[in-house]
Amino acid sequence: MDYRNVIQENESQVRSYSRHFPKVFSTAKGSLIYDEEGNRYIDFLAGAGTLNYGHNNDYIKSALIDYISGDNIMHALDMFTIAKAEFINTFSNKILSPRNLEYKIMFCGSTGTNAVEAALKLARKNTGRRNVISFHGAFHGMTLGSLAVTTDKTSREGAGIEMGNVLFLPYCSDGHYKMDGLDYLEDMLQDDHSGIEKPAAVIVETVQAEGGINVATIEWLQRLEKICHENDLILICDDIQVGCSRTGTFFSFERAGIKPDMVVLSKSISGYGLPMSLLLIKKQFDIWKPAEHNGTFRGNQLAFVAAKKAIDFNVENDLNDEVKRKAGIVDRFVKEHICCINDRITHRGLGLIWGIDLSKIDGINSEMIADKCFENGLIIERAGRQDSVLKILPPLVIEDEVLIEGLGIIKKSIEECIK
Amino acid sequence: MDYRNVIQENESQVRSYSRHFPKVFSTAKGSLIYDEEGNRYIDFLAGAGTLNYGHNNDYIKSALIDYISGDNIMHALDMFTIAKAEFINTFSNKILSPRNLEYKIMFCGSTGTNAVEAALKLARKNTGRRNVISFHGAFHGMTLGSLAVTTDKTSREGAGIEMGNVLFLPYCSDGHYKMDGLDYLEDMLQDDHSGIEKPAAVIVETVQAEGGINVATIEWLQRLEKICHENDLILICDDIQVGCSRTGTFFSFERAGIKPDMVVLSKSISGYGLPMSLLLIKKQFDIWKPAEHNGTFRGNQLAFVAAKKAIDFNVENDLNDEVKRKAGIVDRFVKEHICCINDRITHRGLGLIWGIDLSKIDGINSEMIADKCFENGLIIERAGRQDSVLKILPPLVIEDEVLIEGLGIIKKSIEECIK
Amino acid sequence: MDYRNVIQENESQVRSYSRHFPKVFSTAKGSLIYDEEGNRYIDFLAGAGTLNYGHNNDYIKSALIDYISGDNIMHALDMFTIAKAEFINTFSNKILSPRNLEYKIMFCGSTGTNAVEAALKLARKNTGRRNVISFHGAFHGMTLGSLAVTTDKTSREGAGIEMGNVLFLPYCSDGHYKMDGLDYLEDMLQDDHSGIEKPAAVIVETVQAEGGINVATIEWLQRLEKICHENDLILICDDIQVGCSRTGTFFSFERAGIKPDMVVLSKSISGYGLPMSLLLIKKQFDIWKPAEHNGTFRGNQLAFVAAKKAIDFNVENDLNDEVKRKAGIVDRFVKEHICCINDRITHRGLGLIWGIDLSKIDGINSEMIADKCFENGLIIERAGRQDSVLKILPPLVIEDEVLIEGLGIIKKSIEECIK
Amino acid sequence: MDYRNVIQENESQVRSYSRHFPKVFSTAKGSLIYDEEGNRYIDFLAGAGTLNYGHNNDYIKSALIDYISGDNIMHALDMFTIAKAEFINTFSNKILSPRNLEYKIMFCGSTGTNAVEAALKLARKNTGRRNVISFHGAFHGMTLGSLAVTTDKTSREGAGIEMGNVLFLPYCSDGHYKMDGLDYLEDMLQDDHSGIEKPAAVIVETVQAEGGINVATIEWLQRLEKICHENDLILICDDIQVGCSRTGTFFSFERAGIKPDMVVLSKSISGYGLPMSLLLIKKQFDIWKPAEHNGTFRGNQLAFVAAKKAIDFNVENDLNDEVKRKAGIVDRFVKEHICCINDRITHRGLGLIWGIDLSKIDGINSEMIADKCFENGLIIERAGRQDSVLKILPPLVIEDEVLIEGLGIIKKSIEECIK
Repeated sequence: MDYRNVIQENESQVRSYSRHFPKVFSTAKGSLIYDEEGNRYIDFLAGAGTLNYGHNNDYIKSALIDYISGDNIMHALDMFTIAKAEFINTFSNKILSPRNLEYKIMFCGSTGTNAVEAALKLARKNTGRRNVISFHGAFHGMTLGSLAVTTDKTSREGAGIEMGNVLFLPYCSDGHYKMDGLDYLEDMLQDDHSGIEKPAAVIVETVQAEGGINVATIEWLQRLEKICHENDLILICDDIQVGCSRTGTFFSFERAGIKPDMVVLSKSISGYGLPMSLLLIKKQFDIWKPAEHNGTFRGNQLAFVAAKKAIDFNVENDLNDEVKRKAGIVDRFVKEHICCINDRITHRGLGLIWGIDLSKIDGINSEMIADKCFENGLIIERAGRQDSVLKILPPLVIEDEVLIEGLGIIKKSIEECIK
Repeated sequence: MDYRNVIQENESQVRSYSRHFPKVFSTAKGSLIYDEEGNRYIDFLAGAGTLNYGHNNDYIKSALIDYISGDNIMHALDMFTIAKAEFINTFSNKILSPRNLEYKIMFCGSTGTNAVEAALKLARKNTGRRNVISFHGAFHGMTLGSLAVTTDKTSREGAGIEMGNVLFLPYCSDGHYKMDGLDYLEDMLQDDHSGIEKPAAVIVETVQAEGGINVATIEWLQRLEKICHENDLILICDDIQVGCSRTGTFFSFERAGIKPDMVVLSKSISGYGLPMSLLLIKKQFDIWKPAEHNGTFRGNQLAFVAAKKAIDFNVENDLNDEVKRKAGIVDRFVKEHICCINDRITHRGLGLIWGIDLSKIDGINSEMIADKCFENGLIIERAGRQDSVLKILPPLVIEDEVLIEGLGIIKKSIEECIK
Repeated sequence: MDYRNVIQENESQVRSYSRHFPKVFSTAKGSLIYDEEGNRYIDFLAGAGTLNYGHNNDYIKSALIDYISGDNIMHALDMFTIAKAEFINTFSNKILSPRNLEYKIMFCGSTGTNAVEAALKLARKNTGRRNVISFHGAFHGMTLGSLAVTTDKTSREGAGIEMGNVLFLPYCSDGHYKMDGLDYLEDMLQDDHSGIEKPAAVIVETVQAEGGINVATIEWLQRLEKICHENDLILICDDIQVGCSRTGTFFSFERAGIKPDMVVLSKSISGYGLPMSLLLIKKQFDIWKPAEHNGTFRGNQLAFVAAKKAIDFNVENDLNDEVKRKAGIVDRFVKEHICCINDRITHRGLGLIWGIDLSKIDGINSEMIADKCFENGLIIERAGRQDSVLKILPPLVIEDEVLIEGLGIIKKSIEECIK
Repeated sequence: MDYRNVIQENESQVRSYSRHFPKVFSTAKGSLIYDEEGNRYIDFLAGAGTLNYGHNNDYIKSALIDYISGDNIMHALDMFTIAKAEFINTFSNKILSPRNLEYKIMFCGSTGTNAVEAALKLARKNTGRRNVISFHGAFHGMTLGSLAVTTDKTSREGAGIEMGNVLFLPYCSDGHYKMDGLDYLEDMLQDDHSGIEKPAAVIVETVQAEGGINVATIEWLQRLEKICHENDLILICDDIQVGCSRTGTFFSFERAGIKPDMVVLSKSISGYGLPMSLLLIKKQFDIWKPAEHNGTFRGNQLAFVAAKKAIDFNVENDLNDEVKRKAGIVDRFVKEHICCINDRITHRGLGLIWGIDLSKIDGINSEMIADKCFENGLIIERAGRQDSVLKILPPLVIEDEVLIEGLGIIKKSIEECIK
């Protein structure tokens, strides 16, 4: 069978990654992917943050095979199951308790956007208010409620109808706005002639990934939490892409010492690329009626099995420390070997999420460079305004030498394009 | 570990099925589920239509284990993979081609509601119109776009904001409305003083499952398709719950000989309880821009593997014929043994989706009966107005004797409750 | 000065009546208008219902001159003035009290649409609900809130944005819909799976004027009131065009013996073509905060003076009896002399609002006939679906012979067009 | 008759001015009003800007009496009439032409809010976009479309439904926001991840009257016009309250040398307190279909007569120069005699619209002072955040000595309250 042809002829033209990485992929391990011809690629995309534990992590893998082999429950809606209890127990004891976090866990339909929808509903239900604050550059998902708080023009135009009840503000020091969004928020909340209804909630990424690897400062995050508390706004942290140790702490907000009222997790929570999403809710806000938000796949049992093992793996291997150490490797390499290629190249990031900003260089574009990287054996995506930021997002378990090899490909590819 | 306690203490109070079936379930096979104490339950819920091929179907199972064992690609966003190509090839050759259906396949985030959202977006994009017609009694999902076309009061109140651009009409002969929704639709489309913007699309279930097992007639479905064609409205069939052979044909709309412009599949398409959803799109409507609707889990590779095998299984075992044969068993049993208990009990359905309507009997309620069934070893859900319809939804592979045993439990439970 | 030219060159192309009646008008008296060349026209338009008391009614006229001459207050926002008190006193004693109606009076910005907006706001405020029911064929005004409950396609398309929170239902026996809107309303209000939020209010015209002179039956209006009472919906009667004795009773709803919760009056309430509007509110619903709805011209003092005199005139001249008597003249004339021209011409109406429906005749159109009428010295407008209904709407004070002369012009004009 | 009692018992509790000025007023002349007991009040409210030419201006008065006496057309919808032609001719020749303004004139329903609604519709129609930018502190009217761009909390809460498609930005240097709204607007328009749809239009008051007498700088207004031109946004100037020479030029925007694409006029355009409103439209934007926005009172003939005479009066008496001269009197008096009472009292304004800001003084409130002023024979209103700004808005024709007398009453009243 000509696999590529079968897909191209039958799949909707909405497909996107296969246009930039037009090979048929067959196997993968750790931070490496292989196509059907046996070509090897370093993976700096990691399923857009879904494969923090690497492809086919052996620690998790055997548990999956055992679970399936034993005819254990594979699908159970939201009934009680052993797999679910074991995940909850592990997540509670190894992740929440050590951080003094007391959240109720809501299992949502198995995609991140579904959990964002649940969070927005619940915030509105708790406050009886309609408006939600989001930030320019934000990405929260593609279903209508999540899309309403998502910012990129192309995605929004897909809606076909008005998406209201959202207020967008400038994100922390992102270089795109002269003003400070939090100054504005504070002034607006005091003004009886603002024209703006008091919001129910603020939804925020501590690092805007799709928005171009914009890293909020600790001060900004703390001030945001303070404004929320003082004004009775629910603070929702969307940790779909940068949670699960991506930034060097399990939750990305830990570096600021804040405690959001709700937290959305998905992508790497299951640890093996299996669909799953969670909404964490401070107890006082857990006012759902039974089934008020539901979904057929809200209890993906196999994902529970993987997720439990992923947490065990994370803790046993001190993954957060590893991530912080590797952050230094990336930071140094990019500064010393890539930014020096052209003084208009800048970089930013933390943990293992970094952006190389090419927006200021004339004559080359990020698409050319990403394509060149792929030619050279590296899978890497772009993000941000005009997609001008190369996004470094490898599995957290990547070996140092593979990481450096991948960074080297970026360097080489930029040089080739600039010439 | 006290599994139940761990879950009850930590999970959000939104949980629902675990309230009615408060056991901890551990293993399952075919149409049977077992709790941690070894108690056996017949499953007339089937993951709300997700387990048409039964729990842990051996035909599919081995392929999953082989796939995982081989370190094949588990997560790949929407890149080309072998698992995806093989699913597409099988689906195209064994399902679409024999039915002369020429659809493009869109892989959506792995939940049904995500595919409904995609369908609504695409219908609006194609027509440049905003309104969508849905029917009283409809259920299409819980994210904001899908919820807007969903009808039950509790679900809708969860939204917290206005959901517009939808027009609800009476469904075919459902007993709840004196008028015919299609008469009304035709008149309205002719009227330059209707006040209603011309709609983009109609979204319909050929059998309303959550709405109370309301079965549209063939004539009604054909007339609906005709109105859509004559007025340039896109016809979307939501086959999430009643597709995949549930009604005795692979697509539920086959009995009416119609060809919807878009078809949503999820639940049993993967065949093993694995999260997956599809949107089928007539070629002329596939006008997406790349990535205009996307999602991290839109390519659940393990689900592709299961889905390919599920289709093979379906075809090799003449599943549709089996379903039609079993329909007779249910129909006869309910008519002869259950409806006769009280002349106000009515039943309706086709294939292996049947409702026993208890709304007209005073003094007993459907919740008591469903609870009694569980005591007696049967898992069964309720649906419809005031949740007054018992919903018979077993795996399609259920053995005749287990099917009859389950029906016998319903009979016995109603009798016990009426006494 | 070439008056016509000055206007044509400078006025926006939104102007409409001047296209069909392209003369420059200078003076008017009773039911006659004169153009600058002295040509005489019978007025069957009456300012679209604003001139029930005829042009420049002498009974009112002198009071206006006296008021202006005396330097009395001309503009006072909503302060206490003598003119306002005298109007209220007269309206209360001569209109409300004799009918046992206990309404609070709200003075709105001086246009009908402004009072409709106030009614909708107040209904939503009282109930905390959002939806309002309106009927296919309805016209309530052109500002955004009123436009949302207005039905004609052209007007609605002007909005440029979505207008939600409205539900349209078929009007009483209007021939355009097979179904009965009230049957549907009752069924829907009982259904927990309707998908429709419980409405706040119903807004209704007892005779749809712009919709094509559709006359609701007494039974239908009584049933509507009953449904509203039983379901706690606020019933708003828009009497802007058919109030002020147009139908033979001061309020158009009197013939059905119902008492709407709110009533909107404008057009002829001032009686001299002066801008003014009222909202009547049952005491229990008058829960406004001071200034919650306001407007610079909500106290048009000169209109108060005219309105007081208009009511005196109405009562002293037994205008309602006169209107009923003249209804017979119109009905007979149209039946005997116009409907017989072609058996597809139908007529309907009551009081002095009648429609001649030309929609069923091939080969001629209502625009041609209205234009021909104007050539023959009659000003008459069209209404309804495809503007196919000639609308007979003379001043209520029209002399019998002028009325018959005008009807004769219609007969003659139709005959000339059919030839 | 006890006038006050009649009104209090029968009028809706929405009434507001009569609560602060609880006398029954009977006659008025120039800048003086008299109550039924003959008490004299200086009018610093001037019908909220409707009586720029004073009460019962004799120059206009006689024309009104003549017009009514002659049985001229009083109501004509939008047909051609002599009164309309004469107004247009005068407005065109004496106002538009000397300023090189080429606008088409649209006559809207006779209230300012109706013309604002028309402007918003037309801007959306021209651009095919939905969003409109308004500014914190703005007031544009109470019907739903206008209310959507109005900012005060109380007014907005009256709507009862969501009002979308509006984006609010900080107004020029108003002291309530740290950021500059135009900086923000520019950044946002450049950002493909703003989340905000490109707007259709900006609606602006050059001086926010209800917002607290906030005066935009010339630079800010010019920059706003520039941004609109560069980005293809329609600039709408709402000159309802500060047009008609209130600021010392006929249109308030003249001081900045800008030419808005649309201008809304109402209040003093008729000059005698008669209801009337206009929308001026640059020729290229006048794309209305006939009757696409209409209204029964869009041609108030008596207002045309008054409006023509008002313009004649304005020009003949060099009213703009007079206003500028009187501005100096107010500015000096307030600075020298009122601000010195307490160093936290500030003032701002131009022409004959001034605000005395009392928000920074503890222990007294503006309501007490306004009430005291009334006791002392002055009618004055409050505006702005927490209604803390006394608003000086006398007829433009006020005599110097009456103006100074009125200012003296303010001084005295503040002193009495502070003690």
